[in-house]
Amino acid sequence: MPTLYHLWISPFSRKIRVILGEKKIEADLKVEQIWDRRPEFLAMNPDGTVPVFVDDDGTTVANSVAISEYLDETRPEVPLLPGDAAARAEIRRLVAWFDRKFNEEVTEMLVGEKLMKRFLGTGEPSSAAIRAGHINIATHLAYIGFLAERRNWLAGDHFSLADIAAAAHISAVDYIGDVPWEKYPEAKQWYARVKSRPSFRPLLSDHIPGVRPPAHYANLDF
Amino acid sequence: MPTLYHLWISPFSRKIRVILGEKKIEADLKVEQIWDRRPEFLAMNPDGTVPVFVDDDGTTVANSVAISEYLDETRPEVPLLPGDAAARAEIRRLVAWFDRKFNEEVTEMLVGEKLMKRFLGTGEPSSAAIRAGHINIATHLAYIGFLAERRNWLAGDHFSLADIAAAAHISAVDYIGDVPWEKYPEAKQWYARVKSRPSFRPLLSDHIPGVRPPAHYANLDF
Repeated sequence: MPTLYHLWISPFSRKIRVILGEKKIEADLKVEQIWDRRPEFLAMNPDGTVPVFVDDDGTTVANSVAISEYLDETRPEVPLLPGDAAARAEIRRLVAWFDRKFNEEVTEMLVGEKLMKRFLGTGEPSSAAIRAGHINIATHLAYIGFLAERRNWLAGDHFSLADIAAAAHISAVDYIGDVPWEKYPEAKQWYARVKSRPSFRPLLSDHIPGVRPPAHYANLDF
Repeated sequence: MPTLYHLWISPFSRKIRVILGEKKIEADLKVEQIWDRRPEFLAMNPDGTVPVFVDDDGTTVANSVAISEYLDETRPEVPLLPGDAAARAEIRRLVAWFDRKFNEEVTEMLVGEKLMKRFLGTGEPSSAAIRAGHINIATHLAYIGFLAERRNWLAGDHFSLADIAAAAHISAVDYIGDVPWEKYPEAKQWYARVKSRPSFRPLLSDHIPGVRPPAHYANLDF
């Protein structure tokens, strides 16, 4: 059975967990406390980050983009980059949008400041960063709504890695109750559709030690 | 003819220019002064970043990872992600390494502080950031040397996107004379091999207005 080294709240790990669910790949999930900088783990991934995926044959893949593409190439039955080259480019553009822009402007500012700093022991949360995160998430939820109004899924007709990347980040922020759903009904409707997929269920039953999610977090009808 | 919107010093744009060279794709290069936030450009890429590639049929692709994959899918004759799924995963891991880790730890600290801040008008360079950049580049040059000693090219037997991504970032830092080549002979030897490829020549004749590169920048025997 393949192994996924992950952290519960890491949006990049969440992305891979949803892909595993969509593709019905059973994997052994191992929590990697990256702050310990375990030598065996650094040998697998000198970057020291999660996720890291180890396949049945021992192939070790680090970085969530590399893992996503690897899983889509080795398990193509449920394609998560469907369509022609232009459609695939649009999916990859949006994955990069959420993994870089949303991550920097929202995830790091809210989940990073409020949760990760505590685990990593890197100091007190910055209230300026948290304020910025709250302002930034508005633009992103509006953009999600804009896309969801015009397309069936974020990148086009089909559910794809773009939806998975977006929902992985959003779900991490939602876990700490920082998504202002009421103001963004289109984004909320899109998220409700992602949330109701069986692949998303495991994320909704996550319980991070010492941090309880708000009541609506696991609720499909939030 | 396709169009590439780019900036001379942007490592992400440089990556695509080298890919165009390797694949012998002629393209019209247009400098996009992203700090102007031109509405027509934002309509093509709401992220407001370069590179953006517009293909002959009008297909518009933003983000350097999306463009790289798109070009490799639509022009597969010179494959830049050669090999099986595991080999391709290793290439993508290294691309992500340079585009995220090297970019944050080195490119932004040196090229970002010394050059981009001036163009963007975002303030004085931070000497603390520049110091950190100089310290960080040592680790990265050592890692490049480690890989280059054990493999023919950075990701394995073949020249790939991993070499292109690494060299694109390094070349931007080299333009401002901040690569301590003498201490890292293996990295230097690898870079000399990349530099001598015809696809790399256009980068070596770049002249950014108001900023002259050091004498060794364009020298193949540096």
